[in-house]
Amino acid sequence: MHFEELKKYHFILASKSPRRQFLLKDLGLDFEVVTRDVDESFPEHLKAEQIPLYLCEKKARAFDEELNDNTIVITADTIVWIDDHVLNKPENYEDAVRMLTLLSGRMHKVFTGVCLKSNEKMILFYVVTNVYFKKITPEEIDYYIRNFHPFDKAGAYGAQEWIGYIAVEKIEGSYFNVMGLPLKELYEELLKF
Amino acid sequence: MHFEELKKYHFILASKSPRRQFLLKDLGLDFEVVTRDVDESFPEHLKAEQIPLYLCEKKARAFDEELNDNTIVITADTIVWIDDHVLNKPENYEDAVRMLTLLSGRMHKVFTGVCLKSNEKMILFYVVTNVYFKKITPEEIDYYIRNFHPFDKAGAYGAQEWIGYIAVEKIEGSYFNVMGLPLKELYEELLKF
Repeated sequence: MHFEELKKYHFILASKSPRRQFLLKDLGLDFEVVTRDVDESFPEHLKAEQIPLYLCEKKARAFDEELNDNTIVITADTIVWIDDHVLNKPENYEDAVRMLTLLSGRMHKVFTGVCLKSNEKMILFYVVTNVYFKKITPEEIDYYIRNFHPFDKAGAYGAQEWIGYIAVEKIEGSYFNVMGLPLKELYEELLKF
Repeated sequence: MHFEELKKYHFILASKSPRRQFLLKDLGLDFEVVTRDVDESFPEHLKAEQIPLYLCEKKARAFDEELNDNTIVITADTIVWIDDHVLNKPENYEDAVRMLTLLSGRMHKVFTGVCLKSNEKMILFYVVTNVYFKKITPEEIDYYIRNFHPFDKAGAYGAQEWIGYIAVEKIEGSYFNVMGLPLKELYEELLKF
C-alpha cells in the first residue's frame, strides 16, 4: 500500500496524550481522538515490552463493538524500565525524587507498545529505545519537580521538558518512541495493514 | 554556577530558526532574538565539524561591537555530512531528489557548532549525531518534496517533518542536536561560562 492509499481509512487515535495527537497529525493522517476509560492494571508477572503490549491491546479491545470495515483504531502505551522494574507515575514529591535519583547517571529503556485494530485484523508491535541520563544534581531534580510537577509522567520525567533537555546524554534508537509514538514503525505497519 | 544564576545574564540568540528559538525558550532562559546578515561561505579545505564551528564563530563576531558585561550571544550552525562532503540547501527539485536518494538506506552525520560569546570570553563547541535512514522509495521522496518544499533545509530534510518521521530508523546521540540546538551540552557550557 502507498502512503496516499492510507487516506481511505478512518483512523481513531485512542489516546489522551497531546504529544501523540501532535505526532500523528504531523504524519499526515486524518483521525479523530476517541478515548475510553480502561483499567490500566496488568498482571504482575509481565515484564518489559509485555506490559505496554498488554495495555495497548486492552485499550484497543475497548473499541471491539464499534469498528467497521474502514476504521482502524490506534492505541499506544509507554513505560520506563530500569533494574528489571517498571517506573509508574510518581505518587508525590518524594516519589518523584526517588525515581529521578534512580535514573541519574544511568541508562534506562523506554518501551512503547502500539496496537492497530480493525474489525478484521489486529497488529501489535513495540519499539525500545535506550536513554542515557547524565548525573543530575539534587538541585536540578528539585528545580524540575517544583516547576514542572511531573506527577502524570511515567518515571517522573518528560523527554520534551526541561529535565529531558538537560539530562539526556544520548539515546540509541527512536526519539519519537521516547515521546510516546514510534512514527517510522507505525508508518511501516500501517502500510502493511 | 547554578541554573538559576544564569538568569542574571542577558542572552541574545542570533538565529532565525524558529526551532532553535523554541528549544532555547523551553530550556527556561529569557533571551531576545537579534540576527545579523552574515556571509555563510567558508574556506573549501574545512571538513566536518570545522564548518559549523567556523560559521557560528563568524555569526558571533558580528556582535563584537555591541556586547556588554552581562550579555552572552548564542549562535549555532548545523550541517549534514555524508561521504566526506557537506550537503547544503538543495537548489531545486532535482537537487533535493539527489540528496534524499544519497541519504536513503544509509547513515549520515549531523554536526552542530555552537558559539557562546561575551565581551570577555568565547566558548566554541560542537556535537555530532549519527542518523540512520531506512531505504526510502522514489514515491516517498517525491511526496515529501512536493508537499514540504525542503529548499531551505541542509540535506533537503527536516527531522521534525514527515520525512524525518518515516525515514529515521535510529539515531545515536542527541536528538536536539539534529533539530539544530544541542540543549544538554549548551546547558553544561552555560553553567561553566
